[in-house]
Amino acid sequence: MREKKLFTPGPLGVSLSTKQAMLVDLGSRDLEFIQTVKSIRSRLVELAGVSSDDYTCVPVQGSGTFAIEAVFTSTIPRTNGKVLVLENGAYGRRFGQILKVLGVDFKILTFLENEKVDVGLVEETLRGTQGWTNVAVVHCETSSGVINPIGEIGRLVKECVPDASYFVDAMSSFGAVDIDFTASKIDFLVSSANKCLEGVPGFSYAICRKDKLTGCKGWSRSLSLDLVSQWETLEQTGQFRFTPPTHCMLAFKQALTELEEEGGISERRKRYKENNRIICEGMKAFGFKTLLDDTHDGFIITSFHYPQHDNFNFKDFYTRLQEKDQVIYPGKVTKTDCFRIGNIGHVFPRDMRYLLQCVQEVCSDMGIPLPLKE
Amino acid sequence: MREKKLFTPGPLGVSLSTKQAMLVDLGSRDLEFIQTVKSIRSRLVELAGVSSDDYTCVPVQGSGTFAIEAVFTSTIPRTNGKVLVLENGAYGRRFGQILKVLGVDFKILTFLENEKVDVGLVEETLRGTQGWTNVAVVHCETSSGVINPIGEIGRLVKECVPDASYFVDAMSSFGAVDIDFTASKIDFLVSSANKCLEGVPGFSYAICRKDKLTGCKGWSRSLSLDLVSQWETLEQTGQFRFTPPTHCMLAFKQALTELEEEGGISERRKRYKENNRIICEGMKAFGFKTLLDDTHDGFIITSFHYPQHDNFNFKDFYTRLQEKDQVIYPGKVTKTDCFRIGNIGHVFPRDMRYLLQCVQEVCSDMGIPLPLKE
Ligand SMILES: Cc1ncc(COP(=O)(O)O)c(C=O)c1O
Ligand SMILES: Cc1ncc(COP(=O)(O)O)c(C=O)c1O
Repeated sequence: MREKKLFTPGPLGVSLSTKQAMLVDLGSRDLEFIQTVKSIRSRLVELAGVSSDDYTCVPVQGSGTFAIEAVFTSTIPRTNGKVLVLENGAYGRRFGQILKVLGVDFKILTFLENEKVDVGLVEETLRGTQGWTNVAVVHCETSSGVINPIGEIGRLVKECVPDASYFVDAMSSFGAVDIDFTASKIDFLVSSANKCLEGVPGFSYAICRKDKLTGCKGWSRSLSLDLVSQWETLEQTGQFRFTPPTHCMLAFKQALTELEEEGGISERRKRYKENNRIICEGMKAFGFKTLLDDTHDGFIITSFHYPQHDNFNFKDFYTRLQEKDQVIYPGKVTKTDCFRIGNIGHVFPRDMRYLLQCVQEVCSDMGIPLPLKE
Repeated sequence: MREKKLFTPGPLGVSLSTKQAMLVDLGSRDLEFIQTVKSIRSRLVELAGVSSDDYTCVPVQGSGTFAIEAVFTSTIPRTNGKVLVLENGAYGRRFGQILKVLGVDFKILTFLENEKVDVGLVEETLRGTQGWTNVAVVHCETSSGVINPIGEIGRLVKECVPDASYFVDAMSSFGAVDIDFTASKIDFLVSSANKCLEGVPGFSYAICRKDKLTGCKGWSRSLSLDLVSQWETLEQTGQFRFTPPTHCMLAFKQALTELEEEGGISERRKRYKENNRIICEGMKAFGFKTLLDDTHDGFIITSFHYPQHDNFNFKDFYTRLQEKDQVIYPGKVTKTDCFRIGNIGHVFPRDMRYLLQCVQEVCSDMGIPLPLKE
């Protein structure tokens, strides 16, 4: 099977050595595996820049959405739960889908998809209505690439509703975008193995304020997704409650080692930013336009408008790039025709340059002269 | 990292070539990946021996428990749901834990842990009380090794409560123990990648009667575990709703190929039975006693009583075996001190013989002369 370069927000590409770490079977009670789980959990808390006195990391089997649902189902009070969702894209809207299915009282505050969440409006809502028990926001809204001001929002939450839990979905940003947990007053944050930390998909994790998590005991509406119970068992036995994805965990441990070798989060951020700079400059030179204007500091993924040319057809463009082993991603905003190019995963500046060359070839093959006309 | 032989019910060992199938990254929209998912789903329906007109396979991210909860949360009516659980061990009891958290009306009919579910008593209960919407039973109760008579139970369910859904947890038996779906009237059956089909852990799956599944739309109390919605998306797009464990799926595809190469389910069953025969005969010759008597036809995993010798200490025994790279499993029945030896996964008669040799050496090192005295 030929491997392609994935310029996608996930599943994304990881190093061969990360994948090779999966070539061994470990039992779930094996000391080596228990140590693997322990070191992963503590390294994630370290990467979050917080003390293990205050925070803990709880891995959850399944994709990122499973960890999001685990946080909701486990941390919303069984009675009087009332959630404020700040939404400017598909992943924020998914919060709403989860909460609806859970049968929980919630309100979605909607913002433009190509703009950040407006902190002033959040403040109005927080002060205007009583009884919020949870506030939730997506950090990098991967559907557009917008990065929301989670610090300002968090401080506001704690000022207006000190008892509410503050939940951040940092799926596509944790490990690359700077997150100041303490200053942002984050109670719960989720991400998944197969994002900026460059592990393979198979589990996700929540980084939780211990005092908040302790207070949620017995609230979960699901056994599989019960964060408190998963945490308690991990603390007591070092083991998952149910069969862990041993191979994915081994890959993740290797991925964390490679993050260290790269120089940690700041160096990884540099690489992703450089990937982003190259692709944005190159695409703009070809005449492509980005969805977001330059005031946005997102560098995880970039949305580009479809070019205004009769010969452009996304499916064709996508397939031709794929035939050159370059995998880009469809758009995910509602009102504008876009495609996306991800800058994260095991991709490097040389890969971005090669992708640009392929875009040029494909456009030429499609009869779309570059640079595009206005 | 040194690989050990796993005589455990999961995570269990898989072939190196199955693990090597994970050395490639695929995008979730990649045609190759979509075909992988499609072929896995249809081969599982084939292995179940049913027609794809009547049944479908829905993979679920996470461990086996996630698929069990997915079936419960998705197939129990929102109003008037009333579940009968037939329980003779830890996995049956887990059904109860899930149902309690889901807030569903249910009754647990408890049987002895070292005996099969008693069909006569099931009939009494089914006829004695009205309103059952779902009946659930574990096929191979991995905690003891007992195999329950799912055929007789299924026919009874359909006779007494024709509209109820019949759910079988065949986690540790599917792919090795004969299951006649049609004769057993199974509506929903779950298993996981890392059991008798010898894939790596990371996802599980439900094999579902389509007409039953269709009728459950909108019932799920969870977004992540919504079987109907997962099914609909798979049918419409060929894709998972949320990031799939691509590497685990590739491993599973390879594992299915190796099952075919081995000669299919019947040959695999032969190997597991031979594993079981060797270990049981050998251990009995050493004077160990099995928990179950010979009327039990289980061959997936065998529970052995602790030997009656002052020098025996399970932790010591386990650790010494582990130092010889042999991983056995603790017991999981409530009233009797047992340990378990699994016969499934990538283990062969020669491995069972070598394990016996190690047991002999370890007992000798522990000052426990073999054969044990009565
Ligand atoms: C911000 C955000 N939230 C949630 C998800 C969902 O994660 P998953 O597809 O792993 O369930 C994603 C996936 O890309 C994401 O980017
Ligand atoms: C019969 C049975 N049910 C459920 C489970 C739970 O599966 P998991 O540990 O993958 O969640 C197991 C695991 O061995 C099992 O044997």
